[in-house]
Amino acid sequence: MESSPREPEAVPYHPARSLATGQRSLGDPSVRYPLWPPLTAGCPRTADGDTVYPLEVEYDYAAVPEDLFRRPAGPGLERWAPLLPPLAAPGLGEGNTPLVPIGGGVHVKDESRNPTWSHKDRLNRVAVSAAKESGAPGVVVASSGNHGAAAAAYAARAGLRCAVFTSPHTPPAVASFVRAYGATVVTVEREWLRPLVRRVVEEFGYHPVSSVTDTAHTGHPFGPEGYKTIAYEIFRDLGRVPAAVYVPTGYGELLFGVWKGFHELTLLGRADRVPRLYACEPAAGGPLGAALRAGRPAAQVPVGPTGAYGIACPVGGYRGVVAVRRSDGAALAVTDAQLTAARAELAAQGMWVELSSAAGLAGLRARRASGAAAEDGDGPVVCVATSSGFKDLATGTGTYPATTPEWPAVRELLRQGA
Amino acid sequence: MESSPREPEAVPYHPARSLATGQRSLGDPSVRYPLWPPLTAGCPRTADGDTVYPLEVEYDYAAVPEDLFRRPAGPGLERWAPLLPPLAAPGLGEGNTPLVPIGGGVHVKDESRNPTWSHKDRLNRVAVSAAKESGAPGVVVASSGNHGAAAAAYAARAGLRCAVFTSPHTPPAVASFVRAYGATVVTVEREWLRPLVRRVVEEFGYHPVSSVTDTAHTGHPFGPEGYKTIAYEIFRDLGRVPAAVYVPTGYGELLFGVWKGFHELTLLGRADRVPRLYACEPAAGGPLGAALRAGRPAAQVPVGPTGAYGIACPVGGYRGVVAVRRSDGAALAVTDAQLTAARAELAAQGMWVELSSAAGLAGLRARRASGAAAEDGDGPVVCVATSSGFKDLATGTGTYPATTPEWPAVRELLRQGA
Repeated sequence: MESSPREPEAVPYHPARSLATGQRSLGDPSVRYPLWPPLTAGCPRTADGDTVYPLEVEYDYAAVPEDLFRRPAGPGLERWAPLLPPLAAPGLGEGNTPLVPIGGGVHVKDESRNPTWSHKDRLNRVAVSAAKESGAPGVVVASSGNHGAAAAAYAARAGLRCAVFTSPHTPPAVASFVRAYGATVVTVEREWLRPLVRRVVEEFGYHPVSSVTDTAHTGHPFGPEGYKTIAYEIFRDLGRVPAAVYVPTGYGELLFGVWKGFHELTLLGRADRVPRLYACEPAAGGPLGAALRAGRPAAQVPVGPTGAYGIACPVGGYRGVVAVRRSDGAALAVTDAQLTAARAELAAQGMWVELSSAAGLAGLRARRASGAAAEDGDGPVVCVATSSGFKDLATGTGTYPATTPEWPAVRELLRQGA
Repeated sequence: MESSPREPEAVPYHPARSLATGQRSLGDPSVRYPLWPPLTAGCPRTADGDTVYPLEVEYDYAAVPEDLFRRPAGPGLERWAPLLPPLAAPGLGEGNTPLVPIGGGVHVKDESRNPTWSHKDRLNRVAVSAAKESGAPGVVVASSGNHGAAAAAYAARAGLRCAVFTSPHTPPAVASFVRAYGATVVTVEREWLRPLVRRVVEEFGYHPVSSVTDTAHTGHPFGPEGYKTIAYEIFRDLGRVPAAVYVPTGYGELLFGVWKGFHELTLLGRADRVPRLYACEPAAGGPLGAALRAGRPAAQVPVGPTGAYGIACPVGGYRGVVAVRRSDGAALAVTDAQLTAARAELAAQGMWVELSSAAGLAGLRARRASGAAAEDGDGPVVCVATSSGFKDLATGTGTYPATTPEWPAVRELLRQGA
């Protein structure tokens, strides 16, 4: 043993200053607003009848530290603080999730490795920070799954109250999950979710971290900024821009965030292109595909039966249209049979995902089967897997009584499994 | 945009060569064996009646790269390959979990951030690698929780078959979990678990990744080597050796692994001491505490009712005794009430853990309340949290019908929650 031990340097915790400068309308990029307050009901100046456009955040890109993308990896969105709104709420080491290779140049971005085991932690770190910075007494969210639980976790850690409106069709394990962090959880039928969120905003002054608009999804203007970090991490870990990214898509916030992250890499001179972005929607619904086909900024669609409840949305938003158009991508409709096959493929690689989470790989497999994936060009492909199998509808519903331990019977079971 | 984009360097994937040299008996360190085959039933030369001693792995410490602890963090145990047995099974980006500060110099090592959402992934990456390297056709495991699911995941990814023997008292979400990765799962009463594991080893040639011995736990000789990496990461992230580490303890493999990692840091001249290690056992059982009180290498105890099923073990092993004695630590018995309070404290910080996983924090709080924690000395304290709340007994058992969306009733609920 040496008398003077050589200890490593501690991983620094220096949340750098945010370089966010303001909000800008996606409907008309010349329409700008200050950074505060976050315009959680969309852009008031560009709204046109049923069409409401979301906002995004702008930055002083010229001031981004030259070495930002070369700094050591570390957990927590503070790693990317210059390119995020102020992170006023404490973190849980979100992000920095692994890219898991599954062969054929395909990588799975495993977002189940976040603090509440889904990608929603990235959004909620940023959106709950907006609530904290705004001085709101709490946050309010409508969700039957990951979004509500993530909001509750970050609100609890930030010392904010949290109201979650959830539906009675929530899967059993998820019903425990959304209640886990001590939020006030109220179960109501789906049509009451957004009206109640609005009422809590009005009467309690809570900050909404899910969408408050009915005819088009606007969401929190800061939310997709958290998702951007997925693009940064993919770029850092691959050492290049992938050929394509396949993204499970509900309202399109994740899709837009991933696009924006790659787009910013081109603005910063780090990359010379963005990957093609494929929005993978359940065939039972698919408002983004409908909007693209109709040439509209957003669409509403009926939603049929599907096990992919996490992305089965009747309302889309303009963010998804931007991401697909500007990346030369497409919206893909995946059936429950395709989702089930992709989920089984991931399980055989050691990853147990929620059915919705398999949409990225399902989209890739469908596109490759049709021969269309050749258009993506050379290079690695990334499928985002958003969440764990604990959130699935069937999880926790099976019963498995003890079988006889007689060896011939057990041997036969093992032989069948072999 | 620049004509020559500055892309980052890819995170390198160079699993360095293992420096493992052989196996050594914990019962008598002068008793050595070659590295292969792994002695999965304990050390045959030192066994003495009911007492069976486990093996550990030795390394050529003089050949460890000088910069190993200064290299960038990265997911996957390959980051630490020189100090592990050969990693023949492909990984899932296990490890590299965050240390989450919760105030007062206390940090939570959040092991729910692993590929199957528990610390068991570290063990199974290593133990399934041993099966792969040994040429076994499959792995076999007895587990009603995290261990079985992790073994199934790594076996699937490695292309090995997997047999899991589980008990009928498995919580509902966990019953789905252990079946998720396509293993053959057989549910039997608890007393049949180990006899069936041994039979599968004998007749099918499967490699056992859980313990096959009855009177003392021996486990896989390579398993705790995976857990060692927790100590390496704590040291790297804190930049120092903590004052104490509080570890949820069942059979003592995790506890021993954490101790060994810190011990190796002293062997390598990186650190000048190990932290005190506190084994946090459920008061309903506690074989390690019983062994220490009796001055025995291992003990068997009756196990009363407890919700901490993941660490409610009737049989202990010698590894735990080594870790506590050589670190000047202790075994602490925590009640279900203390576990429940610690779980609530973690939920209020945004971390939803399995009841067993709260044992580390419960042990710290009990020790601080008694004034004894002052003995730990100055410096940060780490509580290991092993797994997520999805694995708890009550998860998935609640029912939550829709309530009336009438605003006065909802307002009252929110006021009560406030």
